[in-house]
Amino acid sequence: MPQGRPEHVPADGLTTRQRRQQPLLVVHTGSMKGKSTAAFGMALRGWNQGWSIGVFQFVKSAKWRVGEESAFHALDQVHHQTGQGGPVQWHKMGEGWSWTRKQGQSADHAAAALEGWREITRRLAEERHDLYILDEFTYPMTWGWIDVDEVVATLAARPGHQHVVITGRAADPRLVAAADLVVEMTKIKHPMDDGRKGQRGIEW
Amino acid sequence: MPQGRPEHVPADGLTTRQRRQQPLLVVHTGSMKGKSTAAFGMALRGWNQGWSIGVFQFVKSAKWRVGEESAFHALDQVHHQTGQGGPVQWHKMGEGWSWTRKQGQSADHAAAALEGWREITRRLAEERHDLYILDEFTYPMTWGWIDVDEVVATLAARPGHQHVVITGRAADPRLVAAADLVVEMTKIKHPMDDGRKGQRGIEW
Repeated sequence: MPQGRPEHVPADGLTTRQRRQQPLLVVHTGSMKGKSTAAFGMALRGWNQGWSIGVFQFVKSAKWRVGEESAFHALDQVHHQTGQGGPVQWHKMGEGWSWTRKQGQSADHAAAALEGWREITRRLAEERHDLYILDEFTYPMTWGWIDVDEVVATLAARPGHQHVVITGRAADPRLVAAADLVVEMTKIKHPMDDGRKGQRGIEW
Repeated sequence: MPQGRPEHVPADGLTTRQRRQQPLLVVHTGSMKGKSTAAFGMALRGWNQGWSIGVFQFVKSAKWRVGEESAFHALDQVHHQTGQGGPVQWHKMGEGWSWTRKQGQSADHAAAALEGWREITRRLAEERHDLYILDEFTYPMTWGWIDVDEVVATLAARPGHQHVVITGRAADPRLVAAADLVVEMTKIKHPMDDGRKGQRGIEW
């Protein structure tokens, strides 16, 4: 892990404590699947801090069910029953965003993705969550459904102390430039190279 | 995520189902901290499958407390109370392995690390867990405390269907060669480059 001593101290007029308290924009990109997995690992730590966590999955299929969703639902229940940890909300585009009346899969993925982003924009303005996981969020930007400049500007202007983690392949350079922390997951070796298919518990 | 169609089908005489059921040896390496985070994310999925999970942290300090440990303790409780998910055991070298009588920090890290590996060897032989997270396990190998060839041979000979995930920088080439899946977490950008220190909930 990185050591606690920064390589240099910036001349930004902030104390170490102020600098430490800055909200982070984190991007997990690259060709490997660990991007989302690592983001959910961060959410685990946030849960333990008592943070309000909002997960927004920009996935097309309603059938996209990952084990993490069930685990975080259980952790949300723990929070509500015992006060330990924080509340977790989990929203998926594929089955119709839960805050809309339109249930079921939408044929118009572009409109659904934009609707998701509009809701996130509202929540950021209201400081609804401490940690936002925007899972697979690079894709609607890549496909032009959501404007990258608007995303960057909205995130830069977000009030308070809200952390945002964005996952997905091929993150736009403007998003990378705006991020505080960017991790690239690189494939060295994958079992599918040997003709194996994904397996339950490992891949989903 | 990777598509479900393998690039080629190996001539190993196995059916797709048999191949899919193969236990995996996964290595998360590289210079970034996402290694452990992604491993714990995998454990979340395993928990949801009802797997027995054993986490073994090869860390020196007893004070190394990550939020994940508390979250998994809560998930273990959920399992024991409701039957949802699987049991989780979490062992840390730094405070004396829990199965030994020697509590408190050991001055002899090499002996403590080897003792941890011996226990893991026993558990693999007994097929105790479905998923083993050997966190920061590359370090005792790098320092020569645990023999890499023995680790590779033991893992290759492990019975049943036990998945093993190893994290840590600078994984030995023999370990990489033996692994089914290797992910390297690469730093593109880190807030400590700007003189910021780690913050609660993000770094630990």
